[in-house]
Amino acid sequence: MQIDPYVLYERVRLQKPVVHHLTNWVTIFDCAQIVKTLGGSPVMAHAPEEVADMAQIASALVLNIGTLTLDFVSSMKKAASAANKKGIPVVLDVCGAGATGLRDTVCAELLRDVRIDIIKGNVSEIARVAGEKVKTKGVDAADVSSDLSCCAASLARKHKATVVVTGAIDHITDGKRVFRVSNGHIMMTHVVGTGCMASSVIATFAAVEKDLAVAAASALCIYEIAAECAARAAKGPADFKEKLFDHLFCLDQRTVKRLQKVSCVA
Amino acid sequence: MQIDPYVLYERVRLQKPVVHHLTNWVTIFDCAQIVKTLGGSPVMAHAPEEVADMAQIASALVLNIGTLTLDFVSSMKKAASAANKKGIPVVLDVCGAGATGLRDTVCAELLRDVRIDIIKGNVSEIARVAGEKVKTKGVDAADVSSDLSCCAASLARKHKATVVVTGAIDHITDGKRVFRVSNGHIMMTHVVGTGCMASSVIATFAAVEKDLAVAAASALCIYEIAAECAARAAKGPADFKEKLFDHLFCLDQRTVKRLQKVSCVA
Amino acid sequence: MQIDPYVLYERVRLQKPVVHHLTNWVTIFDCAQIVKTLGGSPVMAHAPEEVADMAQIASALVLNIGTLTLDFVSSMKKAASAANKKGIPVVLDVCGAGATGLRDTVCAELLRDVRIDIIKGNVSEIARVAGEKVKTKGVDAADVSSDLSCCAASLARKHKATVVVTGAIDHITDGKRVFRVSNGHIMMTHVVGTGCMASSVIATFAAVEKDLAVAAASALCIYEIAAECAARAAKGPADFKEKLFDHLFCLDQRTVKRLQKVSCVA
Repeated sequence: MQIDPYVLYERVRLQKPVVHHLTNWVTIFDCAQIVKTLGGSPVMAHAPEEVADMAQIASALVLNIGTLTLDFVSSMKKAASAANKKGIPVVLDVCGAGATGLRDTVCAELLRDVRIDIIKGNVSEIARVAGEKVKTKGVDAADVSSDLSCCAASLARKHKATVVVTGAIDHITDGKRVFRVSNGHIMMTHVVGTGCMASSVIATFAAVEKDLAVAAASALCIYEIAAECAARAAKGPADFKEKLFDHLFCLDQRTVKRLQKVSCVA
Repeated sequence: MQIDPYVLYERVRLQKPVVHHLTNWVTIFDCAQIVKTLGGSPVMAHAPEEVADMAQIASALVLNIGTLTLDFVSSMKKAASAANKKGIPVVLDVCGAGATGLRDTVCAELLRDVRIDIIKGNVSEIARVAGEKVKTKGVDAADVSSDLSCCAASLARKHKATVVVTGAIDHITDGKRVFRVSNGHIMMTHVVGTGCMASSVIATFAAVEKDLAVAAASALCIYEIAAECAARAAKGPADFKEKLFDHLFCLDQRTVKRLQKVSCVA
Repeated sequence: MQIDPYVLYERVRLQKPVVHHLTNWVTIFDCAQIVKTLGGSPVMAHAPEEVADMAQIASALVLNIGTLTLDFVSSMKKAASAANKKGIPVVLDVCGAGATGLRDTVCAELLRDVRIDIIKGNVSEIARVAGEKVKTKGVDAADVSSDLSCCAASLARKHKATVVVTGAIDHITDGKRVFRVSNGHIMMTHVVGTGCMASSVIATFAAVEKDLAVAAASALCIYEIAAECAARAAKGPADFKEKLFDHLFCLDQRTVKRLQKVSCVA
């Protein structure tokens, strides 16, 4: 199965989907800006009194547990329930899973109480959510010895979700198919929020494409091609981040076709 | 009536007013940075125990409902009451008005319970606050069919406030006079927070000029001239945003005189 | 006593310490990014249910009262107690001390209830915490007439802490020795968050060096050398900030040796 990420990039520009976020306070601006840079319309709102209303104008929802508190989790559930009812995709970024008991509990609760359509994390986070024992060092990824691919696939089947494991090579699976995206650049690991922004990009693409594995693979491919372009002339992480936004804003079909490295396994 | 925006820009540098904010978590850094870039001194504080104290050292107050929660609204009222007592101008950015019932209720409550000196929003937000029915798509503006000018003027008269409607052409009215500012650049719509920052710039100018319509028109003119300069060589929204700050920091009188497009009706 | 700041800069790259923050919402991204730029691993988490757990994976803790609320202060105490037990250094940025009664009370409470290893502020903030009467104008520094050096030393002795007073010349004292760092650039005063970031840099260095006065002096020296390099070609505060990160990322030993201006007074 071949995918054409640029088609979805163009569809986002055309449809300008509203992407609702309940995210962390560290990268909240960048998550909003990355959606707007793609041509979408970001909304960040977490008051329990309005999160369900926001679902009514949104086409996708992002939940990110990066700076969670208990009242925030309660708002997440309300927002996700409304999104579930409306049938719009919910992306859960399991940011920092494994770092504390609270994060593990909250991930488990969210996966139990609401429907999560896309579960996204790095290797150690996804391993943790899948039940493998691994200690997260901060929010940065660690290597795990287990068979990552198996682990992600069984998590996907268990929750009837698409599982996205980011890394040098991203793995995206819905439990049947596996997509691998080899785009990206090491400079991304020097910028806070590249993981959170990835979730926002995935949600934006999921807002315009029902095949969520295709949406997620396309999203990461486009985002990481912009990163490759940005890294070429970047003088450091801050210059790189600026260029990442600006290349994402200006991507053309030829660049995407030339650089895209997405493969699909059955 | 002619205005000289550069005079106020210089007055801000001289007086370095403290501008107190209760704003949203998305653009809180940018709101602080834009005030500092102008030469003012930003303070962001929302604890109910200290917001009234902050009014004592502040020369203007910004309220922004972008990521409101109920306890935050309660702090807003305390801060505004203290500002009212001290006689410093209060700017309300009705960010996202119309998107949810909560936002509409909170705007109405604030306008009822405290004195708001400047009400600022885009076309759809101001229409909503004025009582016109229009659905906000995210926090981005939509066109409205109603007579915007009338709508803003009656809102201004009702609340004895200055009403600022931002857009390609900004409308500023105190119910009698109308200022129109035609500066600005389409690139502003691709950057999250340009609207929030506009409110901070308006508040900073209102801190040094009692004629609030003149202050608001001057503020938008200066801010949007910097945007025009920034857009000239910008490679994308992130580069543009950086240049917007830097041009605002370095504006000179000749540039302002040459580019300013402010007109006053009656 | 001579110090070699570059040695600690390299040690941070090697050890990649996790630096836990309970900080303000204005500069939270920049605090995380500056730690990551140095090669450390930032964690921002404030839920009372997980702050103690975070201490288990962290090598230093930053507390910053910039946008404090009472529940946040309660989490700060929990985090600091856990850090105290584990024996990792706790840095308190007394951001805005003196601006309101709440800030003064909270500083006093934190200094009484938990062990603070490094107290950091500008001239007016430290004067206030030390008991001198001075009114803070926003979060920007004011001059004080008192003998700053004495004031800082007695504060250090009282709390068995290292006291860092930032300014054109930074003073660092543990009550016995005094280090003076003359690096830095006036452009830093035009960027929101340079003070908060300084605390994060200090904490990152304190995570890898037990002599906290040496760690703090080295941290400020390295950070401010990056600022000097950044200022050379900066077009304004935003361009400067980007370059500050990128120079900090790329510093080499020769540049540090050539520019470092640290003196120690027995």
